[in-house]
Amino acid sequence: MQKEPRFGVIGGGSWGTAIVKMLSENLDHIGWYIRNDSIIHHIEREGNNPQYISSAQFDVSKLSLSSTIDSVVESCDILIFAIPSAFLEGELSKLTVSLKDKIIFSAIKGIVPESGLIVGEHFHEKYEIPFENIGVITGPSHAEEVAMERLSYLTIACSDTPKAEIVSEKLRSHYIRTKISDDIIGTEYAAMLKNIYAIAAGIAHGLNYGDNFQSVLMSNAIREMKRFIGCVHKMKRNINNSAYLGDLLVTGYSIFSRNRMFGNMIGKGYTVKSAMMEMNMVAEGYYAAKTAHDFMNRLEKKSKTPIIDTVYNILYKDKDPKKAFKKLTEKLD
Amino acid sequence: MQKEPRFGVIGGGSWGTAIVKMLSENLDHIGWYIRNDSIIHHIEREGNNPQYISSAQFDVSKLSLSSTIDSVVESCDILIFAIPSAFLEGELSKLTVSLKDKIIFSAIKGIVPESGLIVGEHFHEKYEIPFENIGVITGPSHAEEVAMERLSYLTIACSDTPKAEIVSEKLRSHYIRTKISDDIIGTEYAAMLKNIYAIAAGIAHGLNYGDNFQSVLMSNAIREMKRFIGCVHKMKRNINNSAYLGDLLVTGYSIFSRNRMFGNMIGKGYTVKSAMMEMNMVAEGYYAAKTAHDFMNRLEKKSKTPIIDTVYNILYKDKDPKKAFKKLTEKLD
Repeated sequence: MQKEPRFGVIGGGSWGTAIVKMLSENLDHIGWYIRNDSIIHHIEREGNNPQYISSAQFDVSKLSLSSTIDSVVESCDILIFAIPSAFLEGELSKLTVSLKDKIIFSAIKGIVPESGLIVGEHFHEKYEIPFENIGVITGPSHAEEVAMERLSYLTIACSDTPKAEIVSEKLRSHYIRTKISDDIIGTEYAAMLKNIYAIAAGIAHGLNYGDNFQSVLMSNAIREMKRFIGCVHKMKRNINNSAYLGDLLVTGYSIFSRNRMFGNMIGKGYTVKSAMMEMNMVAEGYYAAKTAHDFMNRLEKKSKTPIIDTVYNILYKDKDPKKAFKKLTEKLD
Repeated sequence: MQKEPRFGVIGGGSWGTAIVKMLSENLDHIGWYIRNDSIIHHIEREGNNPQYISSAQFDVSKLSLSSTIDSVVESCDILIFAIPSAFLEGELSKLTVSLKDKIIFSAIKGIVPESGLIVGEHFHEKYEIPFENIGVITGPSHAEEVAMERLSYLTIACSDTPKAEIVSEKLRSHYIRTKISDDIIGTEYAAMLKNIYAIAAGIAHGLNYGDNFQSVLMSNAIREMKRFIGCVHKMKRNINNSAYLGDLLVTGYSIFSRNRMFGNMIGKGYTVKSAMMEMNMVAEGYYAAKTAHDFMNRLEKKSKTPIIDTVYNILYKDKDPKKAFKKLTEKLD
């Protein structure tokens, strides 16, 4: 790229807002798509997002806010998607301009329900974006802590390293450290799988298992994740790097994780439906559990994934959480 | 062994008390050394240890309590040591009977300050116990949760597998699962190192680093632990097994861990001395940091241990925690 690429962020949730904050440490112009006009007006007036991480204060002169996705997509070269995977297709269907020639980075940690694909694959298959123009922003980061400028580490993955470097450079600051990776498939699957494990951690907590068990569960989860990702894309990777293990831990141990909260309600006896209604949203791990389970089931050479199977059976096969976890405990070590 | 071996537990702290509880699920006779007579009288009268995990209720008829270490050592074949490593030599010096022919299992997670050795090595070098008669009981377990009969997993390591199996069988119950390992050196070093990492986690918390950073710290810690143990004893081991990663997590993420608490005070600005005085005890990781640091320093082929070095420099070289951690964050990823 000859000229400085223009960055656009798609999504006004907590993670999208955090990414705009990170970028605005380095850039003088950021496109930002938020679907809700009243939020946009508030940001333009007050310099903060009233709904998410509202303590993050923006220099509004740097932001080109729009509730028309077309205009942000059209005016930007690098698009960072940060909306719940369940809403991705709905937003993309509004597009009348082409995504071709755009560089797409996904900060979405989940599965697109309509296609059952992780986000990178979805953009590739459905929008014909070549893989070298697709990247992933991942790493153990609660948006709330980014807002507070607490030191966080991100991993930027792209098979085309120079593109990962451009994005990495613009996200880096005194409170953000970045690392490059070429394992786009592995990091994206890790980000997806960890939500299932966070649901498992929540169910265990809801069923009154303690910290001793949680640590065993997480120790088994990272081994299961390694086997799973090895089935998807075999390459040399250290599963204990921050993008995999770190991401698992920050979610699995967080009482703020929506996936863990969802699991906790299931463990406490809520039905799946009532837990979803109570939370007024669908936890990403709900879709991920089905996708991961079905994926493994289709493989000829399966690897053992007792934790994913257990979560799947509870969420989709109406298995009793207490009995299912009792069985699971016998498979862990 | 022809006849059923007799078990004795040395130590009346929380972990010793938890081990007696586990054993009493399976055994009708357990020797138990506690140095304080008034505690013994209370247990004999009330069936619980008033100082530690007092909710654990014992069938007193199964216990042979004594405040004379000689009498427990003499009457038992398998001795499980569960006293703080700092007090081990003091207790052993009272012995007038021989430890020869005894099977020694260490449930102590630390370094013997007098020798700078891990407990197994200490018994071997100083008391000439052959390695095949030395074992380790480890795993991610807060004693408090064992008292509540919350499911916990232990790893029993001994180079002589049948001995590990005997101990394993007697500890197992409806709330304790056990696993055998032959990596006595690795599991014992892991149990020791994790206390240093818990101090690091505490310092980070005290310095106001957040959950994002903690997960990166733990992800780096397990990689550092793997390198360290690889230097001590090279063998095939999965560092993500519960005895290593699980143990690290249960301590590093526990707000009850004394090592983490000690680190937290250091991070908040207490001097090492005042933190120790305030806690009225020395955290195991304090000795471990020196031993681990000195050990690595003596090696010709060192591996990088930035977290251990940082903790060591803060505790022993009077380095400013804030500055030392700032430097450390640049070495993590």
